[in-house]
Amino acid sequence: MEQSAAAKPIRCRAAVSKAPGQPLEMEEVEVAPPREHEVRVKIICTSLCHTDVTFWRMKDFPAMYPSILGHEAVGVVESVGDGVEEVAVGDTVVPVFLPQCGGCDDCLSARSNICSVVAYRPGGMPRDGTTRFSLAATGEPVHSFLSVSSFAEYAVVDVAHVVKLGPLLPPEKACLLSCGVTTGVGAAWKVAAVEPGSTVAVFGLGTVGLAVAQGSKMRGAKRIIGVDLNHDKLEIAKRLGVTDFVNPNETGEKTVSEVITEMTGGGADHCFECVGSPSVMAEAFQSSRKGWGKTIILGTAAGAAPVSISSSDIKRGRSVTGALLGGIKPKDDIPVLAHKYLDKELQLDEFITHQVGFGEINRAFDLLEQGKCLRCIIWMDGAKETGGA
Amino acid sequence: MEQSAAAKPIRCRAAVSKAPGQPLEMEEVEVAPPREHEVRVKIICTSLCHTDVTFWRMKDFPAMYPSILGHEAVGVVESVGDGVEEVAVGDTVVPVFLPQCGGCDDCLSARSNICSVVAYRPGGMPRDGTTRFSLAATGEPVHSFLSVSSFAEYAVVDVAHVVKLGPLLPPEKACLLSCGVTTGVGAAWKVAAVEPGSTVAVFGLGTVGLAVAQGSKMRGAKRIIGVDLNHDKLEIAKRLGVTDFVNPNETGEKTVSEVITEMTGGGADHCFECVGSPSVMAEAFQSSRKGWGKTIILGTAAGAAPVSISSSDIKRGRSVTGALLGGIKPKDDIPVLAHKYLDKELQLDEFITHQVGFGEINRAFDLLEQGKCLRCIIWMDGAKETGGA
Ligand SMILES: [Zn+2]
Ligand SMILES: [Zn+2]
Ligand SMILES: [Zn+2]
Ligand SMILES: [Zn+2]
Repeated sequence: MEQSAAAKPIRCRAAVSKAPGQPLEMEEVEVAPPREHEVRVKIICTSLCHTDVTFWRMKDFPAMYPSILGHEAVGVVESVGDGVEEVAVGDTVVPVFLPQCGGCDDCLSARSNICSVVAYRPGGMPRDGTTRFSLAATGEPVHSFLSVSSFAEYAVVDVAHVVKLGPLLPPEKACLLSCGVTTGVGAAWKVAAVEPGSTVAVFGLGTVGLAVAQGSKMRGAKRIIGVDLNHDKLEIAKRLGVTDFVNPNETGEKTVSEVITEMTGGGADHCFECVGSPSVMAEAFQSSRKGWGKTIILGTAAGAAPVSISSSDIKRGRSVTGALLGGIKPKDDIPVLAHKYLDKELQLDEFITHQVGFGEINRAFDLLEQGKCLRCIIWMDGAKETGGA
Repeated sequence: MEQSAAAKPIRCRAAVSKAPGQPLEMEEVEVAPPREHEVRVKIICTSLCHTDVTFWRMKDFPAMYPSILGHEAVGVVESVGDGVEEVAVGDTVVPVFLPQCGGCDDCLSARSNICSVVAYRPGGMPRDGTTRFSLAATGEPVHSFLSVSSFAEYAVVDVAHVVKLGPLLPPEKACLLSCGVTTGVGAAWKVAAVEPGSTVAVFGLGTVGLAVAQGSKMRGAKRIIGVDLNHDKLEIAKRLGVTDFVNPNETGEKTVSEVITEMTGGGADHCFECVGSPSVMAEAFQSSRKGWGKTIILGTAAGAAPVSISSSDIKRGRSVTGALLGGIKPKDDIPVLAHKYLDKELQLDEFITHQVGFGEINRAFDLLEQGKCLRCIIWMDGAKETGGA
């Protein structure tokens, strides 16, 4: 209580998105103190996820301008609002776009990670829909994004959206657990529950897809088929568990699903869609084995385009499911993943292909758009600017 | 071997389908002796399933004329072909459209009931594609249907398609276990694995849907919502476990999925589609709870029309799956269901709403088309003709 009463607005830098697809502009913003159930976090580093790019390009609702994007990050709690007991000033936390209130039917169920109480409010904080950001010069409100908005030196996040993590993990590794890697590993572990000896097909070898491969390898999959248009992914894919590579441009007369069905003698046990394309979703489904094949949808299709699946194929024992954050419950499971990294069971280093200072954030967009990077770490203090390829 | 060598062609009556939607015509047919891995069965009684009606109406491939429909039946083995050791002359058997060779990867796996070895050949026997039926008068071949063709006094069936059943079960009850009831109960038990205390929505209260309700009740579902346009189904639905009834014509401004979502506080845990309509499939999916809701497709859509599901809804932890014969492995599981009937755990009597003699088989089509019947038992010897409402 004392603490939150004492918190004052902070002026700091933020990379503001002002128009669809336009470079972010570095602005001085005012970050209001955290309200009840909120914490203000000093961001240490953040990284760029494809979902940021998808929204950055978006012209229509739910796009909003000006806004502060970013939802993969790690930081330190700077101040806390009323009613916050779970974390304290100085704690290292990972903000996560998916909330976990801890008390609702879903949070209490092992089957769900979709909290029923803390709901997403596009552009604002989850509990009251308002934003804590404004432009310092004019006072104009700046929308927040996915309840995180980590492209700012300070961000206010609902306590349901932060995961307390010990300081043992280097920040750039902790940052990766905030979205992409967790989504992929979680999907293999929690959603598919990949079995030892099983076959897996991964459509799209970005960070999520490669994390699926890694999670599947950790679970003992004997064959992990990576599908990607970009041959440059092959080396890193192998290091993360991919055993076979299929380039959709090089399957000749055959479709990708025909190739995978032949390779696996009937279809893969688990097919993961990590692209967000309805046609790839259909191809993934067709690559799944009759009798028990599962298709897991992880990609975000623009406008939530529908998946079309043949009812006669699904009646041959196939199934389609999907998940946000790979079915991971942030507060329960992200600390477990952190331990697995420290125990050298989980690889994270491979995903960091580039690092830049905050001032160079637009380079991260270029790199991701060009397919040249998995994760580009953006350091708020600029100290670890290392450039990159 | 001796036995099969001795088997001669049999001339008997069959109800032959000669043109789409036209009344079946009673003809004398010749039924060839069983070949290797085949048995010839004297049909005791058969019943009419919606799949028969769907194919009976069909104008294009896979429809074939003339043909002998029918795939729910019970009979006695009259003769066996070479290599048949599983059943002997005089055994009571239930023919089933779904094969179980017992030796392939799928038959050996607990996860699949889609045999990889014995494949369906439209119009003929599964192993060689030819038919054992011909018209006695002209010798013209008559196509078989779903590897069964039970609308004949004798039928030749592959041994992978027969389930040996003791003589304890009255034939009209055994007949029901051949397709519809087994599909519904199996879907609740094996595909959905309905949990005690869960909520279930059943779309379409025909035999399959009502068997889903019963299977769900046996598994301890606390609320079973039946959805059907026909209010006359209410009484029997209640007897078989349905606790709430939704008539899509009477939901006013709301969609069925909105009504179910309200009734269940968020959506049903398990939604079963037993109609075979893409729009009902979509409605069932929308009625499923975020986090863990399952939609199980059992209905047969004409032309295997695709199901369209929102990728953003599926990413909220929903899933869609389907099954043939409710995921039941015929030879393993149908005898278990028979025992459950004898132990009074499984209700079967309620499904028999009408009984006719073989000569009146076209009445069964009328009754099913008019929505007036669940199962009409068709007795080959005509002895139990009881008419019906
Ligand atoms: Zn993300
Ligand atoms: Zn919650
Ligand atoms: Zn049937
Ligand atoms: Zn088999």
